[in-house]
Amino acid sequence: MDLNFTLEARCPETEARLGRFRTTHNEVETPQFMPVGTVGSVKSLDPRDLTDLGATVILGNTYHLGIRPGVPTLEALGGMHTMAAWPRSILTDSGGFQILSLTNLRKITEEGVQFRNHIDGGLLDLTPELSLRIQAAIGSDIAMVLDHLAPSNSPRAVVEEAMGRTTRWALRSLAARTRPDQALFAIVQGGVDLELRQRHVEELCAHPFDGFAVGGLAVGESIPQMYETLAFTAPKLPVDKPRYLMGVGTPQDLVEGVARGIDLFDCVMPTRNARKGGLFVDGGRRKINLNNARFKDDRGPLDPTCTCYTCRTFSAGYLRHLLVAKELLVYRLLSIHNLHIYLELMRNLRAALREGRFAAFRREWWAGVPAKG
Amino acid sequence: MDLNFTLEARCPETEARLGRFRTTHNEVETPQFMPVGTVGSVKSLDPRDLTDLGATVILGNTYHLGIRPGVPTLEALGGMHTMAAWPRSILTDSGGFQILSLTNLRKITEEGVQFRNHIDGGLLDLTPELSLRIQAAIGSDIAMVLDHLAPSNSPRAVVEEAMGRTTRWALRSLAARTRPDQALFAIVQGGVDLELRQRHVEELCAHPFDGFAVGGLAVGESIPQMYETLAFTAPKLPVDKPRYLMGVGTPQDLVEGVARGIDLFDCVMPTRNARKGGLFVDGGRRKINLNNARFKDDRGPLDPTCTCYTCRTFSAGYLRHLLVAKELLVYRLLSIHNLHIYLELMRNLRAALREGRFAAFRREWWAGVPAKG
Repeated sequence: MDLNFTLEARCPETEARLGRFRTTHNEVETPQFMPVGTVGSVKSLDPRDLTDLGATVILGNTYHLGIRPGVPTLEALGGMHTMAAWPRSILTDSGGFQILSLTNLRKITEEGVQFRNHIDGGLLDLTPELSLRIQAAIGSDIAMVLDHLAPSNSPRAVVEEAMGRTTRWALRSLAARTRPDQALFAIVQGGVDLELRQRHVEELCAHPFDGFAVGGLAVGESIPQMYETLAFTAPKLPVDKPRYLMGVGTPQDLVEGVARGIDLFDCVMPTRNARKGGLFVDGGRRKINLNNARFKDDRGPLDPTCTCYTCRTFSAGYLRHLLVAKELLVYRLLSIHNLHIYLELMRNLRAALREGRFAAFRREWWAGVPAKG
Repeated sequence: MDLNFTLEARCPETEARLGRFRTTHNEVETPQFMPVGTVGSVKSLDPRDLTDLGATVILGNTYHLGIRPGVPTLEALGGMHTMAAWPRSILTDSGGFQILSLTNLRKITEEGVQFRNHIDGGLLDLTPELSLRIQAAIGSDIAMVLDHLAPSNSPRAVVEEAMGRTTRWALRSLAARTRPDQALFAIVQGGVDLELRQRHVEELCAHPFDGFAVGGLAVGESIPQMYETLAFTAPKLPVDKPRYLMGVGTPQDLVEGVARGIDLFDCVMPTRNARKGGLFVDGGRRKINLNNARFKDDRGPLDPTCTCYTCRTFSAGYLRHLLVAKELLVYRLLSIHNLHIYLELMRNLRAALREGRFAAFRREWWAGVPAKG
């Protein structure tokens, strides 16, 4: 499905761009951050929390949902929008990343990936076609092709082979599409080898995908390597399609990703950190550890500059007490805070682009980031 | 502090009564159920959830809050109303019950109770005066006296000794009061020995307590024994003061407690059961186990007769999926459901009393309870 991606502004000094696209569920403004709803809920948050936060797309994990509850139950329950009572858009990954990170991988063949799942050890063959079938049952607005991600320190021949397979799997995915209401994004691989990235962009962009992701980053390479690869790759993608940087990242990565031409991001970082007491503050420029004893008697908000429900309602001292006592409520309250920081940063980036002051915003934002010690 | 408890209706066929009282925070209609906010939050729920549910009083645990975060932090953070952003009433227990159930109890003397706490094993002497000091730091609207609860199978002499001590500690508590905005309730002990109950009621009711609790029930005796003791004891308490049945119970216990003249109840049952998938349905008449595979593909609500947020929004199949996957969101959604069942039952009991049809409501309610089998 064509998302009718339209560009509304471009920064003259960087590759940053302001745009919007439409799914059958809603209109999505870009650049945008997508909270991760791994197994069918953004951990601890209900759909009202997410709409209050201004989230417009959430992510579902094909690997997790395909194993549990599985396709028959997904279909019986009407797909993820109905299940999770989520009225806005959903993007699903293809399952490839979780297979590498979570499972006992058996083998990768031209046909697909064979692995034992992390729930009950069951053997599964995931093919590009099955991945799309699960994504169809989830009913996501945007599906991703199954890709073959080579570890970032792999020899060139291995990266090249994975790249070629990713292209062939992407073309099989195009052919296997069943839902006219579902967009399909391809994934550019090639590691940190710019020549391979160039070649893969050319291979994939010759085909009618509805958007393109930059894959294989934030998997072990250095931050300068990631930024360099991104700066090289993103601007070569079609200007009239959304560009998605998968699994990234810190607030700094969002600002720099946007500057390099990225429109969509997802990451578990804000929610996963929140559950451990790692809170982004000051517009995402700094991080604090709420477990620290200095917050014990702190009657002020955990971030005086923040306007989220948590900061408007509760003291840092109370939140720290709940965290230390492992009280269930705290995971939701801290997740609300961190997601607010991320989504507010994206709103600020979009406003800066709209008003032609992105480069200035970026400079001023970085000026408030403390030097690493 | 006098709560200005006023009776508005009495059932001519039972001891049930409709009333209301006022704290400095709000007006509380009785009979009323109080959700338990053990360590400073009703597990998984925020204050909006609780006001949406119609809760008007929540309970705080003096034992838990006194150990962590402790009096200095409670005072620094402004007490539990400010910490938890809870604008309505709070009742605190005295800590006596948790000392028996959770700690390594060292000794009980006339002075107080010595024990090692369950968090870091620290040694603490809890006296009636210290319990009130912690309750003053929490800032509850209603405080309870420290009592000595003898196990329900104790010899008569042991129950008698505990009773005498409870009276003496209650009088020390009266003398140790510091907050003019805090009511103080005494606790009637005496096990299932009706003569001892009679005697303890007479001892305590001679003193200016603001309300009276029936303690020492639901601690091992049979349900008929509990109901008999309650039927004997509750009507002997002053008619113009609230009567509180501590730590009870099932929806059946609420209906029967009200019929025997009880005004206030608290219990962890709705929230603790919810977190394990034990859901009360059909107005509290039945309980289901959401872990059961029969809910796997169930697209309907978990309770078709329920109007709570969870039942209006999500399918039983989705909730079961979240429960099986141990997703954090589910604990809040199921707690909302069970507390709605409890608080709605209390609303229905009050409406029946107001409209002079309590006895009929009780009969009809029980007619829908399935026979045990």
